[in-house]
Amino acid sequence: MLVREGAALIEGLVHWQYGEENDPTGHRRLAMSVLAEALRAVDPAEAVRRCLRLQGETLFVGAETYNLRRFRSIYVIGGGKASVAMAMAVEEILGDRIIAGLVNTKYGYTAPTARVAINEAGHPLPDENGLRGGRRMLELVEAAGEDSLVFCLISGGGSALLVSPAEGLTLADKQGLTNLLLRCGATINEINTLRKHLSRMKGGNLARLAYPATLVSLILSDVVGNPLDVIASGPTVPDTSTFADAYNVLERYGILDQVPPAVLRHLRQGLAGEIPDTPKPGDPVFAKGQNLLVASNEIASEAAVAKAKELGFNTLFLTSFVEGEAREVAKFEAALAREVARSGRPLARPACIVAGGETTVTVRGQGKGGRNQELCLAAAMKISGIENVAIISLATDGSDGPTDAAGAVADGETLARAAGKGLDPWHYLANNDSYTLFAQIGDLLVTGPTNTNVNDLVFVFAF
Amino acid sequence: MLVREGAALIEGLVHWQYGEENDPTGHRRLAMSVLAEALRAVDPAEAVRRCLRLQGETLFVGAETYNLRRFRSIYVIGGGKASVAMAMAVEEILGDRIIAGLVNTKYGYTAPTARVAINEAGHPLPDENGLRGGRRMLELVEAAGEDSLVFCLISGGGSALLVSPAEGLTLADKQGLTNLLLRCGATINEINTLRKHLSRMKGGNLARLAYPATLVSLILSDVVGNPLDVIASGPTVPDTSTFADAYNVLERYGILDQVPPAVLRHLRQGLAGEIPDTPKPGDPVFAKGQNLLVASNEIASEAAVAKAKELGFNTLFLTSFVEGEAREVAKFEAALAREVARSGRPLARPACIVAGGETTVTVRGQGKGGRNQELCLAAAMKISGIENVAIISLATDGSDGPTDAAGAVADGETLARAAGKGLDPWHYLANNDSYTLFAQIGDLLVTGPTNTNVNDLVFVFAF
Repeated sequence: MLVREGAALIEGLVHWQYGEENDPTGHRRLAMSVLAEALRAVDPAEAVRRCLRLQGETLFVGAETYNLRRFRSIYVIGGGKASVAMAMAVEEILGDRIIAGLVNTKYGYTAPTARVAINEAGHPLPDENGLRGGRRMLELVEAAGEDSLVFCLISGGGSALLVSPAEGLTLADKQGLTNLLLRCGATINEINTLRKHLSRMKGGNLARLAYPATLVSLILSDVVGNPLDVIASGPTVPDTSTFADAYNVLERYGILDQVPPAVLRHLRQGLAGEIPDTPKPGDPVFAKGQNLLVASNEIASEAAVAKAKELGFNTLFLTSFVEGEAREVAKFEAALAREVARSGRPLARPACIVAGGETTVTVRGQGKGGRNQELCLAAAMKISGIENVAIISLATDGSDGPTDAAGAVADGETLARAAGKGLDPWHYLANNDSYTLFAQIGDLLVTGPTNTNVNDLVFVFAF
Repeated sequence: MLVREGAALIEGLVHWQYGEENDPTGHRRLAMSVLAEALRAVDPAEAVRRCLRLQGETLFVGAETYNLRRFRSIYVIGGGKASVAMAMAVEEILGDRIIAGLVNTKYGYTAPTARVAINEAGHPLPDENGLRGGRRMLELVEAAGEDSLVFCLISGGGSALLVSPAEGLTLADKQGLTNLLLRCGATINEINTLRKHLSRMKGGNLARLAYPATLVSLILSDVVGNPLDVIASGPTVPDTSTFADAYNVLERYGILDQVPPAVLRHLRQGLAGEIPDTPKPGDPVFAKGQNLLVASNEIASEAAVAKAKELGFNTLFLTSFVEGEAREVAKFEAALAREVARSGRPLARPACIVAGGETTVTVRGQGKGGRNQELCLAAAMKISGIENVAIISLATDGSDGPTDAAGAVADGETLARAAGKGLDPWHYLANNDSYTLFAQIGDLLVTGPTNTNVNDLVFVFAF
């Protein structure tokens, strides 16, 4: 029923290492080719190439077209862990048409480029190098006029790497405030409201600075649900929050007297109307250009589903919004696997059910693991003994928690394999030590850094 | 798109009470009719009627047929909370053909019957009345010969209500052992292994006693996954565990010296082969008759799906194996709702996604609630602001936790409604106080006792 395929096809973008001895049926190899296709679809360069196509002087970007004759100059700016790969793909397509550019990237993530300068900077904590890069981006954006096309390349880590404190503020001021807010238990939404009102870039401010140039943002989403105003704090996206909202957060937590004075001064200027608020939905600065999601959890899921279908699987894509404690999400995934195995519902074998998102782990133990590996370990306990099913969970950035694995594979024999090595899976789960267990039974997924991040993918396979 | 239907149809088996003021669109009423249909399908009498049909002298039971001319006598025995309703339905169909019968039921669950005696007894702790009923059932079964047809009616609570300690054992012995095992942290599987080897009925022993009569068990499952050997400890189902397994459990926990002496004596007689072990798969005592699941979580789910389809919904049945912490399962259900709302996947609106099982609540607060209500409260926080979606969780027995509600309804406006009453939903969730919150905003589901129990059903609706 299933079409087998050779090693060649699954060793394109990523190389998988897993216990070959655990794959007598070849089922895993088949599953791996589905995962590889998901990763390939969200490879940053691949994603840019898919969305950007030049034909003569017409540039197709997603559903829009741009007549390049209209533009005297093209600039490229951006920040994030994938910005280098994205910049290289843009260069590949637009070449010498790019007049200048700079992207901020994390230390160690550089590569040779022709037109777009690569600036290594601090992440997750922004630093002086990041600031310098930010200043250069603002210069470029301000140089861009009505006849300019500006590409902004945004990916995971962009919040720290697209950094430019508002006038009069320092990095230390912003960091002091963030730490204060975290201590109060402020929500990420509240923190972002403050961030957007203390930055020259975030909360749509970059779009205002770029206006009247045409601004095209290519966005690789690492936030569940792809809220464009949240990814990298939405530098090119309308903001619905106000200076008043930002001020109210501080008031609500009773910390007005503790925030850095420069922060308070800035917010009060905003409240007094001396500084314009972030641009709101409908603001003319957003009338030109577009925000285009080039890679996301769904895009990866869709590629996985398409590949699985091609291999003969019945497929179901459930959601890209998975959240929750990893070992609990595991039970739901196992419930799906058990139903498929018992009744052939919601899908008959061979079946592939895909769900995406990002789980969390409440660490109680001392072990080594990641949310995807822990999910698999907990799932293994619920599908033990069921034949020819597997639950596979994958961190698309290739790094699941503080480990060198991207995830793991659980199946009906996981517990038996562990028992065969004298390992008690309950002990490993209790100690958040999933890595150590899966390493010993050869069921880790190892991809190495994938240069992308669209959160996690969880697969139920029934062969 | 959706076919509306009047109040009449949804007020058949159950009457729903909910905040009419929260249903300006009529969507909830529509959802309620889907839930009502699910309950109707697993109403014990309804379930028996669906599976049992008499045509002339031919009795159809599930997929099997029985020529009643072959049988001189028909007996009815059984135990469980639904046994009375089941017995009445059997009487309705077989009438005077029933020669004698007795079922054990929980105190207060009685009703007038013609042929099958109703014996009220202790539940969840078995008592002397239960023992008396058990003895009478064994008499009937022993009176039944080759030319007899015996119906055994099994439903939730059957473990306590189909009670008959092995020779030489008392109820106190068995209870002492169970308490001891619970204190050691023994699993429910281990406890069942012991139970099956200390009973005249459990673990298939009833089938052996009934042999060579034809034994037909009609089973209403209240255990997730419907493991027939677990429901009421499987009195009519082959057992795979042995006296050695039972003894090993006591050894493993190092409690051989603490168990009641009569228990130890009995197990040692079993080990020595002086007492036959429980009948195993393939044992000829199971060659006649059948074990028929007449009501289960899937049967309820299927009825819900069929009804939703009839109303014009796109439908998806996911699984009957849902387990896990209620507030975590809520996030997965919310993830489904959010994806439907955003992308029309896995189903386009109007959509109805059904999952069944039973969640748990780790109680940390002092409030009033149940697993279904808590699931809904946690889900409400994840779907806030999304239009025309609802997540509904229902305890099919009508009693969710220690409350008079069967569950609740969460939708995109739940948080706003709570805020409108000055209620902080996070506070109620932290305090396990979902009932109190939903009661105040009129979003409880109240069905009253349904006389059935096939665990819980969780619905995602998008209208």
